[in-house]
Amino acid sequence: MTLLEEVKKGSVPDVVRKVIVEEGLPEEMVLEGMVAGRVVIPSNRLHPPERPCGIGARLRVKVNANIGSSPRSAEIEIELRKLSAAEEAGADTVMDLSTGGDLAGIKAAILSRAKVPVGTVPIYQAAVTAGRERGRIVEMTEEEIFAAIEDHARAGVDFVTVHCGVTQRTLQTLKTSPRLMGVVSRGGAFLLEWMIHHGKENPLYSGFDRLLDIARRWELTLSLGDGLRPGCIDDSTDPAQVEELVVLGELVRRCRQAGVQVMVEGPGHIPLDQVEANVRLEKAVCAGAPFYVLGPLVTDIAAGWDHVACAIGGATAAMAGADFLCYVTPSEHLALPGEEEVRQGVVVARIAAHAADLARGDPRAWARDRRMALYRRRRDWEGQIKTCLDPVAARRYLKDVDRGEDYCSMCSEYCSLKILSDRLPLRE
Amino acid sequence: MTLLEEVKKGSVPDVVRKVIVEEGLPEEMVLEGMVAGRVVIPSNRLHPPERPCGIGARLRVKVNANIGSSPRSAEIEIELRKLSAAEEAGADTVMDLSTGGDLAGIKAAILSRAKVPVGTVPIYQAAVTAGRERGRIVEMTEEEIFAAIEDHARAGVDFVTVHCGVTQRTLQTLKTSPRLMGVVSRGGAFLLEWMIHHGKENPLYSGFDRLLDIARRWELTLSLGDGLRPGCIDDSTDPAQVEELVVLGELVRRCRQAGVQVMVEGPGHIPLDQVEANVRLEKAVCAGAPFYVLGPLVTDIAAGWDHVACAIGGATAAMAGADFLCYVTPSEHLALPGEEEVRQGVVVARIAAHAADLARGDPRAWARDRRMALYRRRRDWEGQIKTCLDPVAARRYLKDVDRGEDYCSMCSEYCSLKILSDRLPLRE
Repeated sequence: MTLLEEVKKGSVPDVVRKVIVEEGLPEEMVLEGMVAGRVVIPSNRLHPPERPCGIGARLRVKVNANIGSSPRSAEIEIELRKLSAAEEAGADTVMDLSTGGDLAGIKAAILSRAKVPVGTVPIYQAAVTAGRERGRIVEMTEEEIFAAIEDHARAGVDFVTVHCGVTQRTLQTLKTSPRLMGVVSRGGAFLLEWMIHHGKENPLYSGFDRLLDIARRWELTLSLGDGLRPGCIDDSTDPAQVEELVVLGELVRRCRQAGVQVMVEGPGHIPLDQVEANVRLEKAVCAGAPFYVLGPLVTDIAAGWDHVACAIGGATAAMAGADFLCYVTPSEHLALPGEEEVRQGVVVARIAAHAADLARGDPRAWARDRRMALYRRRRDWEGQIKTCLDPVAARRYLKDVDRGEDYCSMCSEYCSLKILSDRLPLRE
Repeated sequence: MTLLEEVKKGSVPDVVRKVIVEEGLPEEMVLEGMVAGRVVIPSNRLHPPERPCGIGARLRVKVNANIGSSPRSAEIEIELRKLSAAEEAGADTVMDLSTGGDLAGIKAAILSRAKVPVGTVPIYQAAVTAGRERGRIVEMTEEEIFAAIEDHARAGVDFVTVHCGVTQRTLQTLKTSPRLMGVVSRGGAFLLEWMIHHGKENPLYSGFDRLLDIARRWELTLSLGDGLRPGCIDDSTDPAQVEELVVLGELVRRCRQAGVQVMVEGPGHIPLDQVEANVRLEKAVCAGAPFYVLGPLVTDIAAGWDHVACAIGGATAAMAGADFLCYVTPSEHLALPGEEEVRQGVVVARIAAHAADLARGDPRAWARDRRMALYRRRRDWEGQIKTCLDPVAARRYLKDVDRGEDYCSMCSEYCSLKILSDRLPLRE
């Protein structure tokens, strides 16, 4: 039985109980969410995460950090440091997107060290291996694609991105409605190249039942990838993107029938005024499946600051109902992120997630901001540091306070809080 | 005659023409906006800015950078470096908020060096001088408050924040509906302390006609300050804040009757779901006057990253109609910003402003993002650097490209753009 089937039968597996406790929500709320497919708890059958997390409606908005090697930077130690940086900064999950070096070794190291759920994109392994062994990505076989997925499941991965919505039909749409930027999803590009070269349907679509079998066997949560997400503002919400989403909606229903947990991935580069519509569209077309957004990036011209462009889009998306924010780091579009970029990416995505939690009325989020405000009013600097999202960054600026002064250098003695401190009634 | 009266009479003063050219909009659109009070062009009569800017409906969203000394950091050279950093990063205006050192000297130096319009908060000078000369802020006289404003106008300041909406009535509301955080506006706190101490009405409210006379004489644009803006999420959109806004709405009408350009300042700490409502409320209550927002900060717990909390709120506010974003720096709430924090604050606020320009359908903003996307597709790294908002930050990450490679270290040879480059039709 899968986790979903167990819950449907009325039992409350350990991993689900942990999530209920962590969220501080009524048990029924989380269970009903799972039964309805609006909540998923990625948790590999043989290797459940130490700190599982629920993703979906009415839960706290979650943040994922992408780590992993590239051909130019492929050391296990570096990836483990990125993993620690992500977890320390508060990532709820990590994804290992390695494409360089010892792929299996890096994955195993991350899985053995990670406390949070781990996701991967198995098509990378199939493509990279074909490229290395036979010189061309298109040489990968259908068998190898599914073998890579099963490999990852066996290794203990909790969720996988599978680009099942890139089909011959959506490929036609890319031709009849050309884009400015083309396809910017790596998994999407690998599959499209394969499909064009072989003139065949995407194996992850035509062989979706086989994927469901693997998912059932290992309790692998499927994250239906958006291989056709827009890669620039001008391609946003275009026919190919929307058509792919419709395909993903059909596949969501097949997952639910099979007792397989599923979430849906979303854009991408989207102007701010289209973000809410994109979320509502996903929720309608995919029957409320958890929405996992990469960004959205609300402009193309924030190179070096794409984590901020992403926070703007992510907060708005999550307020509108997106459940899971994939971080973007300051080096996005320019370089593989290092440890420091990972840290910054997570912090900024958590600001967006928390802003959305507040906007959604989450009582724990409100309580934390109230606590922060009280510490601020009392000029309790250590209280502020322990309550804020990034104590390291906050402490960096508190030079005066370190000298034992009762105000910060911003206003010094002209602190409005001090000036009026006994003059006005305040509430607690 | 004031600038507004000249435009109403049908002439197009030089400074207005410069703005029309800079915006690339039809002349009538800008002129109609000014006549209706929905657009202002701050420009001191004797000392017009070298690079004037229009602020308001249908214009590009503008960004202000606050600089200025505090008692702990009061060197003219430091402030001039912050001014350069702000202008180089793309600030449309700067405000000198100095409260330490040689106030007149710093102001004069900034005014002589600044290319963009300069704003100030003259009440700081009145309060600081009273504190220095007579030991207590409350010793400032009504005469000194107006003298400080006239002083700034004479020195060449283009716009001033005046906290006219802090009245005995709104003070009562602060008592009957107590806040968690109290009053966080320095100008608001100076005036409230004075009003409580003397038991008198706010001179900037009771003497508003005198203020109008000064504004007319020097062509000083009034920025009606929000002395009662909320200082924490839990105080957002409370009775005192809304009541002050209603007072400001009345004063907007008196400005327009007097031919004085006016804008309205806004919050503050506001949860994301209340941001749009706050903008629409201002536009309704203040008859479309340009809205100048400080933030809004969408959470209290982003210390060290408040520029990002501000970008999230600012982009949403500007999409909803806010016209002018006051930046916040990473050291907000903790320390006076230095040169680097100023730079970062401006860049991040410009990302928010640009995201809103895109969302509002600004054709020049769309053209720039399209240009960036084309450079990105062609892997034209120099093109990307010259098109993005912060070339310095972007270049920092481009290590591989500096070695002459045709891809970045993020995906290396697994670049989706390269994989599919000849496989799909693309549009220009």
